Amino acid sequence: MTLVVQKFGGTSVANLDRIRHVAGRVARHVRAGERVCVVVSAMAGTTNRLVEWVTGIEPVHYDRAEYDTVVASGEQVTVGLLAIALQRLGVPARSFLGWQAGIRTDGAHGKARIVEIDPAPLRACLEAGVVPVVAGFQGLGPDGRVTTLGRGGSDTSAVAVAAALGADRCDIFTDVDGVYTSDPRVVPKARKLERITYEEMLEMASLGAKVLQTRSVALAMRYRVRLQVLSSFEDVPGTLVVDEDEIMESQIVSGVTYSRDEAKVSVLRVEDRPGIAAALFGPLADAHINVDMIVQSVSRDGRHANITFTVSRADLPRTVEILERIRGEVGFERVAADPDVVKVSVVGVGMRSHAGVAHRMFRTLAERGINIQAISTSEIKISVLIAEEYAELALRALHAAYGLDRA
Amino acid sequence: MTLVVQKFGGTSVANLDRIRHVAGRVARHVRAGERVCVVVSAMAGTTNRLVEWVTGIEPVHYDRAEYDTVVASGEQVTVGLLAIALQRLGVPARSFLGWQAGIRTDGAHGKARIVEIDPAPLRACLEAGVVPVVAGFQGLGPDGRVTTLGRGGSDTSAVAVAAALGADRCDIFTDVDGVYTSDPRVVPKARKLERITYEEMLEMASLGAKVLQTRSVALAMRYRVRLQVLSSFEDVPGTLVVDEDEIMESQIVSGVTYSRDEAKVSVLRVEDRPGIAAALFGPLADAHINVDMIVQSVSRDGRHANITFTVSRADLPRTVEILERIRGEVGFERVAADPDVVKVSVVGVGMRSHAGVAHRMFRTLAERGINIQAISTSEIKISVLIAEEYAELALRALHAAYGLDRA
Repeated sequence: MTLVVQKFGGTSVANLDRIRHVAGRVARHVRAGERVCVVVSAMAGTTNRLVEWVTGIEPVHYDRAEYDTVVASGEQVTVGLLAIALQRLGVPARSFLGWQAGIRTDGAHGKARIVEIDPAPLRACLEAGVVPVVAGFQGLGPDGRVTTLGRGGSDTSAVAVAAALGADRCDIFTDVDGVYTSDPRVVPKARKLERITYEEMLEMASLGAKVLQTRSVALAMRYRVRLQVLSSFEDVPGTLVVDEDEIMESQIVSGVTYSRDEAKVSVLRVEDRPGIAAALFGPLADAHINVDMIVQSVSRDGRHANITFTVSRADLPRTVEILERIRGEVGFERVAADPDVVKVSVVGVGMRSHAGVAHRMFRTLAERGINIQAISTSEIKISVLIAEEYAELALRALHAAYGLDRA
Repeated sequence: MTLVVQKFGGTSVANLDRIRHVAGRVARHVRAGERVCVVVSAMAGTTNRLVEWVTGIEPVHYDRAEYDTVVASGEQVTVGLLAIALQRLGVPARSFLGWQAGIRTDGAHGKARIVEIDPAPLRACLEAGVVPVVAGFQGLGPDGRVTTLGRGGSDTSAVAVAAALGADRCDIFTDVDGVYTSDPRVVPKARKLERITYEEMLEMASLGAKVLQTRSVALAMRYRVRLQVLSSFEDVPGTLVVDEDEIMESQIVSGVTYSRDEAKVSVLRVEDRPGIAAALFGPLADAHINVDMIVQSVSRDGRHANITFTVSRADLPRTVEILERIRGEVGFERVAADPDVVKVSVVGVGMRSHAGVAHRMFRTLAERGINIQAISTSEIKISVLIAEEYAELALRALHAAYGLDRA
């Protein structure tokens, strides 16, 4: 008997009508002979309202454990309502809060990580022919208090539950119907992918495709949980995220993505001496600022260098401030900041065995007169930094160049 | 060091401003050197909204355990927010949900009774100098699931926590500032009582004075918890509910109350034979209809009787329906129903040692031309049923007759 974990996000359970609709979907699977374990988020908007109440009382230095207690109440409402909606359709169901489902986390309140899941309570429920409806996003900390996993944590809950139960598949129902070769709002010829590998999905999630949370994909990859992304509103097949060997013939490139959350920082005329990178990037790391693409160019005199890198846009002001503070000590002429950049990436496991992928990217952009400001690569990804105004043009040109356009 | 349990109801924590205000009150007590354990309800309106969601999905036959899971989320929000508000004022505090506070109930979901409270978690918290903020109205059932105590259950939670901790006092903060000799909206000369006995409070609560829930008073009496009813908005002393021996000189009558939730039913010309009362009241009891005052009068022929009794107004249509159904079988002429009646009661432990209390009541009403339709008494209470139009007149006249008017 197939065992499926089905996860429904906040927009899928935003009101009573949608909760009834979700119950109907689950009921169809149960009647088709599948065993189903459901994981749900809070009603859309609820978590934001609860967070606003917390910060309304204490804007910054609120107790994270109390924050978790307040915020976790959102999922408590939806699990109970969905269980009742299922029962009304004649499907036996019962709700499980994080602490009842055996979901143990570490003590990092507000962004806890799942340490282990005792599968016994959910397994006993399934074996009794009852659909467990599990509160996503929450667990029990080592202090016996409620924890939450941070934003988007419900995806992670679902994958972790699927792994603990040894489920055949974990279905993530969301407001899009799958993973596309590119953002369909920008690239009208983007196609829905039938399958994608964990590695590609991981790159695409971390590059800004907001279908799945990076954390949940990494967890799925680690425990080899077959993930499916599909629409909670339309009844059409979604995209399967699977192991590479489940995909017969990989495309060289599976997707073209972009991220606007980039800002370029150039440190000009740095003295070129050993230890200079550590002197620059150490203070940024201390301030929890994540540095991404790094390019170093040596000046004509051979004694100075320009160092260019990217940070997220939100971190740009703090980055400039920190660099100005250490200017005298490190020794450089000035800092230049440019928030109007975008990172465009091509992703595909097929790259590993194909040469010329990077070359095609650079040529395609050059033909459109688009200047590349920085490059970074991994085994299955090439990213370039370009001026933001070229974002749409670059995306559409690359999508066509790699043969991804819809027939 | 004095240990006080302070309970704040839904209107006292209805929004962030009021939660801050409650935190301020608790903080003052803590700074005055008292140890405080707080019990709170959900924000006013929240529980109703949650119940509406449940019944919006399944109007009647909803799973009580799921109902409890949904509804208990309301208190979860307020305990977290109040703990944060206290911390902001420099008062160490932490929230406890029912299952974290060791509040064990029976398995009667939706109207559970507290079976026992393990005082260890709250005691450890208090001993660490931290104010526990406990979710009222909820506990942990024998099935490991969340239970709720039914409407007004937060008062009961507070009293039970006070008993378990051996607290010196249990303060119930509400939207009135104490217990009055009568309803001040009807009797302008009503006075606030400084003290009242458990027995009197119990009678007054069950007679319609909505200050405290009957259940919580009974629990306080059983465990000798000193209760105080006081306003959460004004900083004035309230009314202490205490043991009789803590009141030096009891008034003969402490209060005059009334209940409009009464309806009179007369069963006319019943055959007067043994077992007739059982034949009439058995079917009503089976339908969970509570019968209160009962008067039986024998007709002139000596072979028939009229039986008059009261039920709550909501039960009147069902009562008449049931009686009509058994008319032939039991043997009576007809049923007469009158919803326009009111029950007026005088309550006082001093009655036990004073004669003439009933006589004064009857004389006072007779002087105003008010007809008494039924009478019932207990050791410390006399109730009469009168036509509703005389309610205010009767209340004011009795209040004056027993010397309760404000000087």
